Amino acid sequence: MEIKYDANGLVPAIAQDIATGEVLMLAYMNEETVKLTLETNIAHYYSRSRKEIWKKGATSGNSQEVKGFYYDCDGDTILIKVSQTGVACHTGTYSCFTNELKSSTANKNTIGDLYKVVLDRKLNPVEGSYTAYLFDEGVDKILKKVGEESAEVIIGAKNNKEELVYEASDLVYHLLVLLVNEGVPLGSLYEELAKRMK
Amino acid sequence: MEIKYDANGLVPAIAQDIATGEVLMLAYMNEETVKLTLETNIAHYYSRSRKEIWKKGATSGNSQEVKGFYYDCDGDTILIKVSQTGVACHTGTYSCFTNELKSSTANKNTIGDLYKVVLDRKLNPVEGSYTAYLFDEGVDKILKKVGEESAEVIIGAKNNKEELVYEASDLVYHLLVLLVNEGVPLGSLYEELAKRMK
Repeated sequence: MEIKYDANGLVPAIAQDIATGEVLMLAYMNEETVKLTLETNIAHYYSRSRKEIWKKGATSGNSQEVKGFYYDCDGDTILIKVSQTGVACHTGTYSCFTNELKSSTANKNTIGDLYKVVLDRKLNPVEGSYTAYLFDEGVDKILKKVGEESAEVIIGAKNNKEELVYEASDLVYHLLVLLVNEGVPLGSLYEELAKRMK
Repeated sequence: MEIKYDANGLVPAIAQDIATGEVLMLAYMNEETVKLTLETNIAHYYSRSRKEIWKKGATSGNSQEVKGFYYDCDGDTILIKVSQTGVACHTGTYSCFTNELKSSTANKNTIGDLYKVVLDRKLNPVEGSYTAYLFDEGVDKILKKVGEESAEVIIGAKNNKEELVYEASDLVYHLLVLLVNEGVPLGSLYEELAKRMK
């Protein structure tokens, strides 16, 4: 079984975010970009409009580190699982699939959803947003909050479950703010956590 | 913005499982099957080889109930979120994407999976397991580790990304150990985190 290219030498490639499970975009690859993607572990596509090879994020910085590379039963579609830096869509949204004809109450993926909300606050600061305030203050302020919230987790755990849950959530939230601020994809954290499972 | 069909009147449609987040298959729709899919909430495709409309599961019983219907920024790709009955692939596998050129370890359920592993260590202690050791030592020891790991996150963030990812993973892991030790379901944390999204 091999990858089958169409009459134009192309095959559609679906990019799925490894951290949130979200389908980010569909673009096309030719034989050369399949090879480049596998060799470099950075997503490369072929632009049908510009008729050229396109290294995702080369100009925008929004690159995709390829963590998994699959093709389907017919060999005519590729699925890559990526760790997305920044956003996937050139319109500035995390995924390209924002036009909704029918909406789903999708399965909860709270950490991934929260990471996206935090990322959005970084890219599109909102007046009066606490998250935007933290980004504005910078890494030292965020780190002070990480220290403070971890102390509150310790105190909360000594008090009662409700307080623990509340403070643990605060800590996780500030940790996500830290990751976004430092440009760390959520996928990097998940990959490292996966190693803890052995 | 509307859906754009190619020269053959077709548009690729990605089917994603709403329950697991897994990408199941990619097939093609024409204008008529887009309409049928939206009207019936059952996935209909157009078979390029048989040149006919194809109601997924009509013969196999493996139908797809459509829960969400989206299209992308260019209008040239559809994403449907489906509730899959049986399996999606005609080869008998759940997803069509079973051919692997590069495999991934992490997934969107990493935190949930890790929580389950930690919980298992609590319920079935294994000799020599660090997690089992923490439970044996008790809450004060776990809280000391939460404090220590948060300090290491702060130091790591001041050093480099790799160290931040490593230390943030350690902190999240010890936080999960704390939650398990205190009998807090992961769902309680997620519920509280969801409130942070407003």
